[in-house]
Amino acid sequence: MSNDKQFVKEITPQGEDFSRWYIDVIKKADLMSYSPVRGCIVFKPDGYEIWENIQRELDSKFKETGHRNAYFPLFIPESFFQKEKEHVEGFNPELPWVTEAGGEKLEERLAIRPTSETMIGHMYSEWINSYRDLPLLINQWANVVRWEKRTLPFLRTTEFLWQEGHTAHEDEADARRETMQMLDVYRQFAEDFLAIPVIVGQKTPSEKFAGAIDTFSIEAMMKDGKAVQAGTSHYLGTNFAVAFDIKFLDRENQHQFAHTTSWGVSTRLIGALIMVHGDDRGLVLPPKVAPTQVIMIPIGPPKTRDQVIAKVDELYAELKKAGVRVKVDDRADQSPGWKFNEYEMRGVPIRVELGPRDMENGQVVLVSRVTGEKKTVQQSNFVEEVQNLLAEIHQQMYDKAKQFRDEHYIAVDTIDEFKTFLETKRGFALAGWCGSNACEEQVKQETGATSRNIPFTPTETKSTCLVCGDAAKHTVVFGRSY
Amino acid sequence: MSNDKQFVKEITPQGEDFSRWYIDVIKKADLMSYSPVRGCIVFKPDGYEIWENIQRELDSKFKETGHRNAYFPLFIPESFFQKEKEHVEGFNPELPWVTEAGGEKLEERLAIRPTSETMIGHMYSEWINSYRDLPLLINQWANVVRWEKRTLPFLRTTEFLWQEGHTAHEDEADARRETMQMLDVYRQFAEDFLAIPVIVGQKTPSEKFAGAIDTFSIEAMMKDGKAVQAGTSHYLGTNFAVAFDIKFLDRENQHQFAHTTSWGVSTRLIGALIMVHGDDRGLVLPPKVAPTQVIMIPIGPPKTRDQVIAKVDELYAELKKAGVRVKVDDRADQSPGWKFNEYEMRGVPIRVELGPRDMENGQVVLVSRVTGEKKTVQQSNFVEEVQNLLAEIHQQMYDKAKQFRDEHYIAVDTIDEFKTFLETKRGFALAGWCGSNACEEQVKQETGATSRNIPFTPTETKSTCLVCGDAAKHTVVFGRSY
Repeated sequence: MSNDKQFVKEITPQGEDFSRWYIDVIKKADLMSYSPVRGCIVFKPDGYEIWENIQRELDSKFKETGHRNAYFPLFIPESFFQKEKEHVEGFNPELPWVTEAGGEKLEERLAIRPTSETMIGHMYSEWINSYRDLPLLINQWANVVRWEKRTLPFLRTTEFLWQEGHTAHEDEADARRETMQMLDVYRQFAEDFLAIPVIVGQKTPSEKFAGAIDTFSIEAMMKDGKAVQAGTSHYLGTNFAVAFDIKFLDRENQHQFAHTTSWGVSTRLIGALIMVHGDDRGLVLPPKVAPTQVIMIPIGPPKTRDQVIAKVDELYAELKKAGVRVKVDDRADQSPGWKFNEYEMRGVPIRVELGPRDMENGQVVLVSRVTGEKKTVQQSNFVEEVQNLLAEIHQQMYDKAKQFRDEHYIAVDTIDEFKTFLETKRGFALAGWCGSNACEEQVKQETGATSRNIPFTPTETKSTCLVCGDAAKHTVVFGRSY
Repeated sequence: MSNDKQFVKEITPQGEDFSRWYIDVIKKADLMSYSPVRGCIVFKPDGYEIWENIQRELDSKFKETGHRNAYFPLFIPESFFQKEKEHVEGFNPELPWVTEAGGEKLEERLAIRPTSETMIGHMYSEWINSYRDLPLLINQWANVVRWEKRTLPFLRTTEFLWQEGHTAHEDEADARRETMQMLDVYRQFAEDFLAIPVIVGQKTPSEKFAGAIDTFSIEAMMKDGKAVQAGTSHYLGTNFAVAFDIKFLDRENQHQFAHTTSWGVSTRLIGALIMVHGDDRGLVLPPKVAPTQVIMIPIGPPKTRDQVIAKVDELYAELKKAGVRVKVDDRADQSPGWKFNEYEMRGVPIRVELGPRDMENGQVVLVSRVTGEKKTVQQSNFVEEVQNLLAEIHQQMYDKAKQFRDEHYIAVDTIDEFKTFLETKRGFALAGWCGSNACEEQVKQETGATSRNIPFTPTETKSTCLVCGDAAKHTVVFGRSY
């Protein structure tokens, strides 16, 4: 596809305009197109393939932890939203409504799902009768819609793709265990698969999910110092069980309301991994999620071309057999230099170069996208060297992202200190908070930053509120966010 | 989950009431639930897992044939439908409309996609500039909505899941090649994966896709003699290219309209495979698509129980390692007899029984769901025997379905002959057709049967129209359909 990328000549440097850089990169790397529908994007093949890799990995983790997939309707009757008060207040402003269908006006309006607690709650009330039916552990891969005012490709789109886990349990303890387990699945996934360090903690009441008792999140820092909430896990108590009558006969033959949870991650992860790892040359994709992990480029004059390509094909077959996602670019009508730039821009973790001199020496050159370093290795060791370098690149990317995060994450005592930090360095602040909505709101008004979460393992504990100076109830991470 | 199945005591015999049998089976086997939204079902885990297996297999076939996945918006602006005349006429009566969103009335109504030719056509016009961008080979896995009057779980639901391939080509020849290639992918998939024999052919003009030049289909026969259109592939000519301005510079630097195709299969395949293979005891799932291929049940008295279970676990591990989808049911609170019935009803292809006497003899018993035959095999040969039996069961199911189809598929010369056949035996009729809409319509009026397709390889060729007796232009398969 030639497409929109031809209109992006150069990538704006991150330091000049980070937002511009982001849009340049995702267009030039051909990950998405704007659609004619407000706030909706098209996930083009190179963007969608990142999501497919995310899905495959998470789906296997969900199944390992005992969950099964199901699929529930897109449409949610209006009356369902009325049943849980906080939920309707939270989501009502963002709902699109189907009012006509099949040539007739509907008796009851249907919302397009923004999330499925209500529909799934309704079904669970039919399915769950006894403690023997619990825990009920279901996940759904689906599209959802939220009519957002400001949108940004991948990070905040009107329609997006996600998974939503919905589980029901006999008691609070079991439901909380599930909530924490899935939060930890997300943390591990972010770190081990996306090479993104995250801050794990609990949302403050004002930032929790509409209808939840407690919301927990993993929060990642982008290269402009802003936060992306990369995954959430909610303990919903019996709120939805009461609203939808999810009752069961317990082991003592008494009727009880189930305790439910929900948890989700979405296609915003694609935006997050671009903003965490990308650089002025373009995308830098972590090896485990990269659609293409290795690009092989034959070099040298025309007379040795056939011979070089034959060797490249041989090495390609070895890598492929070992399960590495590898491609060869042997087009004659593009120069090696053009190709080097192209695949760097597309974020391919390893470039393999092979020319006539390498042929003579039985060698091959590996170039790391993240460090730019060249490494000459023996062809006899090729597969092992590539696999080792992929693992090394993952670790380097994680370390680099963590170092950046740590350098842009300070503890402050006062809101003024935070404001100075945001003006000079940008990033997150760790601060004490008295627990009042007023102080949280004032931070937002004065800094544009919201509480990200109350981290489980803060680097230090603060004793006074950054706004009012009263005794701190919690130590909170604040940051501007996407 | 205990769920709705407890309300289904017995499965209605197929011979008594096939429709009732179908509903009994899908409820009792826990594949779906009705939802509170008109015509929408919930795909429960045991039903959804069948779809996941279908997806995995087809997705790999699509990728092998050079296609990549992408994702396009759910919403389609009303003006898009107006651009292709036949398309709007075909789909307008079935569209649900979003008229309000985010608390405001929309300036332009948005349809929920019934299929995506229009949205994808719009995007392709932006992406395609040169013959170098062609062929463009994209597939989408998505939910779609059609506001159907009569619905039936899996076979015809308001919202359903499907894949839709959309490709663009330089010329008619290449687009037609693609159309036929994907039709053949579907045929192979139906036969080799679902064990469903299909009739491959071209739709008559009155039955083709709204906006297509030619539509091709694979048609399967259910056990009540009715047809299910199991997959379609359309050559769209330049209809959508003209409507959406999909133009490219060809090799002679001239502007040309692209030739496009689309092709799809949906969750109705789940309904088809149940109706093709099921029997009075319940589901019979073809081995390749069955979520559980082998169920292992320890038998015998309590005193040998631990020993038997230990052996079962050992054999289980061997099967699992060989990639067989296997489960053990070693619950002590259900009798072996109850379990036998349960897994027969759920359609598990092979039951493995192991008791104390088998232990002594180093043997194990395999029971085929399709023939009911018991086979005692050596434990040392266990994995190989299971794999052979799975392959054998696939072939037996295919042969059985084909035999049924052939026995219910006759050639007729006149519409009266067809009517007599439908009254006495039910099934498909092969007949000559003059090509007029009037005669096709008369068949429908008098028999309730529609033309299924014009088969590529009819068992015989008919020379006169079954209605008017004029010279036949085509030999057509007629049948009542879902």
